[in-house]
Amino acid sequence: MDSNTIKNNILAKKSFLCIGLDTDLTKIPSHLLADEDPMFAFNKAIIDATKDLCVSYKINTAFYEAQGLKGWQSMIKTLAYIPKDIFTIADAKRGDIGNTSTQYAKAFFETMDFDSITVAPYMGADSVQPFLAFDGKWAIVLGLTSNEGAYDFQYTSSEGEKLFEKVIKKVASWGHEDNLMFVIGATKAAQLKDIRTMIPNHFLLIPGVGTQGGSLQEVCINGMNDRIGLLVNVSRQIIYAGNESDFAQKAREEASQIQQEMSTYLS
Amino acid sequence: MDSNTIKNNILAKKSFLCIGLDTDLTKIPSHLLADEDPMFAFNKAIIDATKDLCVSYKINTAFYEAQGLKGWQSMIKTLAYIPKDIFTIADAKRGDIGNTSTQYAKAFFETMDFDSITVAPYMGADSVQPFLAFDGKWAIVLGLTSNEGAYDFQYTSSEGEKLFEKVIKKVASWGHEDNLMFVIGATKAAQLKDIRTMIPNHFLLIPGVGTQGGSLQEVCINGMNDRIGLLVNVSRQIIYAGNESDFAQKAREEASQIQQEMSTYLS
Repeated sequence: MDSNTIKNNILAKKSFLCIGLDTDLTKIPSHLLADEDPMFAFNKAIIDATKDLCVSYKINTAFYEAQGLKGWQSMIKTLAYIPKDIFTIADAKRGDIGNTSTQYAKAFFETMDFDSITVAPYMGADSVQPFLAFDGKWAIVLGLTSNEGAYDFQYTSSEGEKLFEKVIKKVASWGHEDNLMFVIGATKAAQLKDIRTMIPNHFLLIPGVGTQGGSLQEVCINGMNDRIGLLVNVSRQIIYAGNESDFAQKAREEASQIQQEMSTYLS
Repeated sequence: MDSNTIKNNILAKKSFLCIGLDTDLTKIPSHLLADEDPMFAFNKAIIDATKDLCVSYKINTAFYEAQGLKGWQSMIKTLAYIPKDIFTIADAKRGDIGNTSTQYAKAFFETMDFDSITVAPYMGADSVQPFLAFDGKWAIVLGLTSNEGAYDFQYTSSEGEKLFEKVIKKVASWGHEDNLMFVIGATKAAQLKDIRTMIPNHFLLIPGVGTQGGSLQEVCINGMNDRIGLLVNVSRQIIYAGNESDFAQKAREEASQIQQEMSTYLS
């Protein structure tokens, strides 16, 4: 999928919402646990209830790996169930030496058919570039993350430049606007304006709105560009909005509220 | 497994060799491809042929994920086949916000029963600490990696301190010598002496000897401490030493040569 298609999907749906499928067996409605595949049953209901309101689903691989083989199977089934016009993200934070990164890229782009994968930058060029070598696929590289731990290393300053700034500039030189996005946490929205001067055209994946406390309005004011350029992820606030038999309807209501707020920023 | 047990295993086997199971279907002997589970068949033969020569096996998860469900199954079977007194490493380079890292820790420490997992540090404390909360389990955090891309960010200097030095010092303060190791590439052996002044007692996982060009002797001179403190990983040079029906014997010969060299540094 190219950036133009993503932009057109955003304009058509009046939404740049990405819904994070952080599907946790201890948090989904208990009546689903009797299902043969509870993770998939939950995801299927959430997707059915929200697919007209979002332009992307993000599968957080950790929650599936925690369930072993069965979880990996639930991930495959979930990915296959997502409509093809919706941008899919494997939130996997992978990255290793070149020949190993190539194996990760094969895992998520070929063996599975994700549109994109999140990638950790610490190991540098040869750990990121293999993900950029697949036509129509995307690497979404960690720039400035939404968590408290971001302050441990990402703000380290060298010659007037913070590490996350160096990462963004350098990584941007390895790819282009149709195979590379960056993760920028909504909780760091104040930095978004500066980040936009470095990468005016790239799409950004923005987690941290919702449970983690980031402001959607601030993200839009500082981060939106002329091709919108934002995929704002919300996970727990949507998928765990309800915990009873009407959980999917509750998720839809929550997603719909966010989509409506987004539509105001798009007009 | 605690560091004392690892040290005693090293002294008993006169080896601090870790064998990396980077099992690639395009590289294993072709006669194995007829097997129901070629990855496991290969690993089983390698383990049978080398288990008295090494103290650790490192499973590079990327190669298994690239094969999808079947690969995940091969990984589980391989892990179960490794003798319990041998230290097992999931080379998975995971790391995410806290609640997600906890899921990864569950995946590799509970759902599977690895002794340790490699962890990427970019996201800071809350991305690493969940891996340190499991009794008897280890996080092996990327310090200074063996690849060319290490120069992109890890050497970034701030107030006289390089990023990898800051990472090592800060991460060391989150754990202790029985739940935390660091990855230090053998190709950066010149830095090992300085790194030892920062973390004199921690075990180090050293990749990069062999195919990547690092020197075992230099690693030992600069990195060994009074509890040995080294697990030196060799992957391709051992497991792909042969490509015919005698591949396991060839792997044994290669591992044996390295073990013999190691025994001289231990005496």
